[in-house]
Amino acid sequence: MGLNSHNNRVDHYSTSVHANEQQNLTTVPVSVTVSGETMAVHNVCLPPEKTTWQKLQHRLSEVFFPDDPLHGFKNQSRVKKLILALQFFFPIFEWAPNYSFMLFRSDVVSGLTIASLAIPQGISYAKLANLPPIIGLYSSFVPPLIYSVLGSSKHLAVGPVSIASLVMGTMLNDAVPYNKDPNLYLKLAFTATFFAGVFQATLGFLRLGFVIDFLSKATLLGFMGGAAVIVSLQQLKGLLGITHFTNKMQIYPVLSSAIQHRNEWSWQTYVMGFCFLAFLLTTRHIGMRKPKLFWVSAAAPLTSVVLSTVLVTLFRSKLHSIATIGHLDKGLNPPSSNMLVFHGQYLALAIKTGIITGILSLTEGIAVGRTFAALNDYQVDGNKEMIAIGLMNMAGSCSSCYVTTGSFSRSAVNANAGAKTVVSNIVMASTVLVTLLFLMPLFRYTPNLILAAIIITAVIGLIDYQSALRLWKVDKLDFVACLSSFFGVLMISVPMGLAIAVGVSVFKILLHVTRPNTCVLGNITGTQIYQNVNRYKEAKRVPCFVILGIEAPIYFANSTYLQERILRWIREEEEWLAANNGTSVKCVIIDMTAVTGIDTSGLAMVRELKKMLEKRSLQLVLANPGGSVMEKLHQSNILESLGSEGVYLTVNEAVADMSSAWKA
Amino acid sequence: MGLNSHNNRVDHYSTSVHANEQQNLTTVPVSVTVSGETMAVHNVCLPPEKTTWQKLQHRLSEVFFPDDPLHGFKNQSRVKKLILALQFFFPIFEWAPNYSFMLFRSDVVSGLTIASLAIPQGISYAKLANLPPIIGLYSSFVPPLIYSVLGSSKHLAVGPVSIASLVMGTMLNDAVPYNKDPNLYLKLAFTATFFAGVFQATLGFLRLGFVIDFLSKATLLGFMGGAAVIVSLQQLKGLLGITHFTNKMQIYPVLSSAIQHRNEWSWQTYVMGFCFLAFLLTTRHIGMRKPKLFWVSAAAPLTSVVLSTVLVTLFRSKLHSIATIGHLDKGLNPPSSNMLVFHGQYLALAIKTGIITGILSLTEGIAVGRTFAALNDYQVDGNKEMIAIGLMNMAGSCSSCYVTTGSFSRSAVNANAGAKTVVSNIVMASTVLVTLLFLMPLFRYTPNLILAAIIITAVIGLIDYQSALRLWKVDKLDFVACLSSFFGVLMISVPMGLAIAVGVSVFKILLHVTRPNTCVLGNITGTQIYQNVNRYKEAKRVPCFVILGIEAPIYFANSTYLQERILRWIREEEEWLAANNGTSVKCVIIDMTAVTGIDTSGLAMVRELKKMLEKRSLQLVLANPGGSVMEKLHQSNILESLGSEGVYLTVNEAVADMSSAWKA
Repeated sequence: MGLNSHNNRVDHYSTSVHANEQQNLTTVPVSVTVSGETMAVHNVCLPPEKTTWQKLQHRLSEVFFPDDPLHGFKNQSRVKKLILALQFFFPIFEWAPNYSFMLFRSDVVSGLTIASLAIPQGISYAKLANLPPIIGLYSSFVPPLIYSVLGSSKHLAVGPVSIASLVMGTMLNDAVPYNKDPNLYLKLAFTATFFAGVFQATLGFLRLGFVIDFLSKATLLGFMGGAAVIVSLQQLKGLLGITHFTNKMQIYPVLSSAIQHRNEWSWQTYVMGFCFLAFLLTTRHIGMRKPKLFWVSAAAPLTSVVLSTVLVTLFRSKLHSIATIGHLDKGLNPPSSNMLVFHGQYLALAIKTGIITGILSLTEGIAVGRTFAALNDYQVDGNKEMIAIGLMNMAGSCSSCYVTTGSFSRSAVNANAGAKTVVSNIVMASTVLVTLLFLMPLFRYTPNLILAAIIITAVIGLIDYQSALRLWKVDKLDFVACLSSFFGVLMISVPMGLAIAVGVSVFKILLHVTRPNTCVLGNITGTQIYQNVNRYKEAKRVPCFVILGIEAPIYFANSTYLQERILRWIREEEEWLAANNGTSVKCVIIDMTAVTGIDTSGLAMVRELKKMLEKRSLQLVLANPGGSVMEKLHQSNILESLGSEGVYLTVNEAVADMSSAWKA
Repeated sequence: MGLNSHNNRVDHYSTSVHANEQQNLTTVPVSVTVSGETMAVHNVCLPPEKTTWQKLQHRLSEVFFPDDPLHGFKNQSRVKKLILALQFFFPIFEWAPNYSFMLFRSDVVSGLTIASLAIPQGISYAKLANLPPIIGLYSSFVPPLIYSVLGSSKHLAVGPVSIASLVMGTMLNDAVPYNKDPNLYLKLAFTATFFAGVFQATLGFLRLGFVIDFLSKATLLGFMGGAAVIVSLQQLKGLLGITHFTNKMQIYPVLSSAIQHRNEWSWQTYVMGFCFLAFLLTTRHIGMRKPKLFWVSAAAPLTSVVLSTVLVTLFRSKLHSIATIGHLDKGLNPPSSNMLVFHGQYLALAIKTGIITGILSLTEGIAVGRTFAALNDYQVDGNKEMIAIGLMNMAGSCSSCYVTTGSFSRSAVNANAGAKTVVSNIVMASTVLVTLLFLMPLFRYTPNLILAAIIITAVIGLIDYQSALRLWKVDKLDFVACLSSFFGVLMISVPMGLAIAVGVSVFKILLHVTRPNTCVLGNITGTQIYQNVNRYKEAKRVPCFVILGIEAPIYFANSTYLQERILRWIREEEEWLAANNGTSVKCVIIDMTAVTGIDTSGLAMVRELKKMLEKRSLQLVLANPGGSVMEKLHQSNILESLGSEGVYLTVNEAVADMSSAWKA
């Protein structure tokens, strides 16, 4: 193959039994002659020796610190390190020194814009969680302020979000209907928020942020679609003016409840409701079509609230059947730490609700943060963000706020409106502060129908059937995961829907390992390349060899399968070679390049396979086993039993070396 | 690199966008000059196009028919096919025509040998399951006969086994103590056996046999060790002569119960008990040390039973404190189909017990069958065996038998004694038949202590601490799985112990995917080989390139991690290259050889990565993406965005082609 014969051998370590064996046999590198030219055979190394403790250390650092978060601290003076640490824990110190009037101007514009969205959405989402509307405004005041000190995303607009509100509303209302015991419900909501915060901060602190990765994009797509359908249908209550509506969240009870209470429908409500819904959907459509006109959709909710409130106030006598928000107290967030309950029969419910809303809001917040960070070319540390969001919720639970996170829709508006730093959150919070202090009475005659319309407009975008179709096109199993979470949420319940979807995703990984791909490799003539003969027509089988590629770690879950499958490949290849070349198989080469790990069941399989092939006078050769695989083959003494001609660095060297040995 | 320039190009399909693009650019193969020599660049193919239906078909056939069980049927006449089908479903037709007297002689010897083991063990194991001793003999009669018609293993000795007996005894006794309602207990035992059979046969019929692979060897090792410890301690009841003993199965209650009832210890019982135990353990040791003397250990249990019965009968007046089996009815298995219960509050318990004992006995039976098949060079079809074992248990449940399977210890004796076919099972069943019809009164004065000693001798070998140590040496995570099932069984319960161990095993797979190995590759000078620079000191980094190997499918569970990790590698490599070579990085090559799959999250990651690198003026190149990965890259339009210089067949070609392009 025209390689220059060379003398530089691969270093090996004292533990390299195979290398030692070969060294005993020959003191110069093995040189093989193939088609008149000479090529060297390389030893396969064991990885550098490490103690169990070192391995554990390496493994733990890969699991918990893959991004090497402290690399900036290396080779710095002590003072610099202190400053870096301060900036690390309080990102505000990073940008505050360079903050300028220009940046502030942008932040004020974007802050006011998201405030105009946050106020109506805050009220609406609180309704969605079955909470008093004012809780939604409280939640748009304290958490953004805390996030602006701790958070590292520049574009995240913090506040209540639809999914977490929906899930909290469902889970708590199932056990403690709000209208039966509002005080207990409120207590549980704050307690759940506290636990959500604790859970989020703990995940971040223990650097376990990767657990949110198990909610794959496909799963979330289905979940959000299902939740959006349920939420939209639930808004029929507000849109149609029904007073007695089901508390259930499955599709069937909600629909039948809407139809059963036909007599409660109020025509003033639904005419006005659908008009405003149409207005909001139109502005949303305009905002999406022309990103420059984003302010149209951003301003629409507040405009609708003002317009509808004015209408209802003016024509109060004629529109008395339209339900309104009613009296709201002026004033700042009252403290609520005395409302947290850490005992009693509902504690388990509060913890469960906290964990589920916590993980969902975390997923949204982190995803939004990462998206806008990538768009604007900065990085967000997921684990640090989790701590920030967690602390913000813990603080929120003590100041009459419920679960908050970074909202996707408002963050998009924030970025579009030109937000440069988290100061836009401070501006928004200040606007909410003014509202809380002075403008609350204005909401007295705001009709509930407008809140329903705002919610529908906000969640309708979550039903993303085009992405679902794309999933179907690219990855059928992802589509199944998406569908199962969609129908799980719609038909059973939110936690079950999520559990099913995570189950399907994990099953997908297991299936991949349980039934890995195997293929027959052939040589592309005139090269050292070996490829799948079914994929590359140019790849030709090598007489006397069966060369198999295995594309998975060899684990307990697939060792039996792989053994059967390899034997079947050998049988089929023997038949093929006998029919086409008239040669018989002498050697089976297994390309281990993609075998990224092996466990004790896998090792037993290799040992067994070697024995079975020996009985049939076939030689077993492993090509290019990876570091950890080599190590385990060595530790289990299989390497020795394979002998010096049992392991090669590449398939090509194995074929060349063995062919020339046979000729000799 | 001295390759002959050649014109044969890899075939590509109409869907191969990349290939088409390249064809537009050049109509002759791209030839690149490296160090004065010419080499060809190969296109990367898409796999042959398949419809969704074809893919599903392929996938299903790999999941359910990996061993191609019907390959013998191909190209056969219709009559031959019929005969083959008959032989396929009833393996007896395979060997019966060639059965000879010579074979029969061997089978009689081995059949009598295992009968001498099966009778005392049958009685003992029934005791272990809290069942009347005679059920153990019934279970050694009907099931072996059925297996001899349906089973395909030649060496399996069928009957009750310790683990399944223990588990059934524990699970049923927890809910329905045997001494409170023996009749209900018996009904539940038969019902559980029936469900075990249904479950086993269904698994086999649906070809879902691979589920037993999820009980990895490491898990089973720990599980069996834990069960053996518990079982041995429970035998203190019989060995010490305690009458009031706990029904619990955890280590603490058992030990404390033995000590609390010190006053019930009978010295005649424990002196005799420990003497026989010592005798049995010694013979077991001899049999293990010298395989030729296997008959010593095989004959010992029956000898002990006879000897102890004679002793107790002769000195009955002095040994009255020794508990004996008592009166046993003569006669064949009575029908028990009327005792199966399919309703009521205990149905769920019976089903659960059936499934757990079913899967455990299946695991033992299949493992034993495979082990002796491999030793004697024939193959056993796991799924067919499952159907055989399942039908045998269903039939057993209707003829007063409880769960049976292939016993490891008796099968070993069977093979050692020279069994050639399943006829040895028929011989054994006939011997049991004679015993049932005529010899039952002889067991009247057989002391319970001897059953305890037999059980301890049988299970003590399951405590295999040497294998556990080997696990620790080779695979720490397997050791953890082993330990957790050991302590799970010992401290909590059998089902929980199993569940924890399966959980740990699955977690191991998930960890492997969630935190895959990544490494920097370098060129081994003078070759086309690229290897991990940390493992191969000879592998040298190539200036201007960062070449990364990823050793896992890119899935939702690791796409975030991989993105962060790749960016960190690039950062670190940029620093290294700047410090050592003074060059800056121009191109990032990702070796996809070990990336065996990609899902939509992974695709999004690649797209994102490409964008991020573009912003930093770095080119992203994928080397050797596999068939399914290529297909998905194409379907999601990433292939087009990578362009014609974004995908190469090997790292070497990528480096060579891009270097020469830069020079030009």
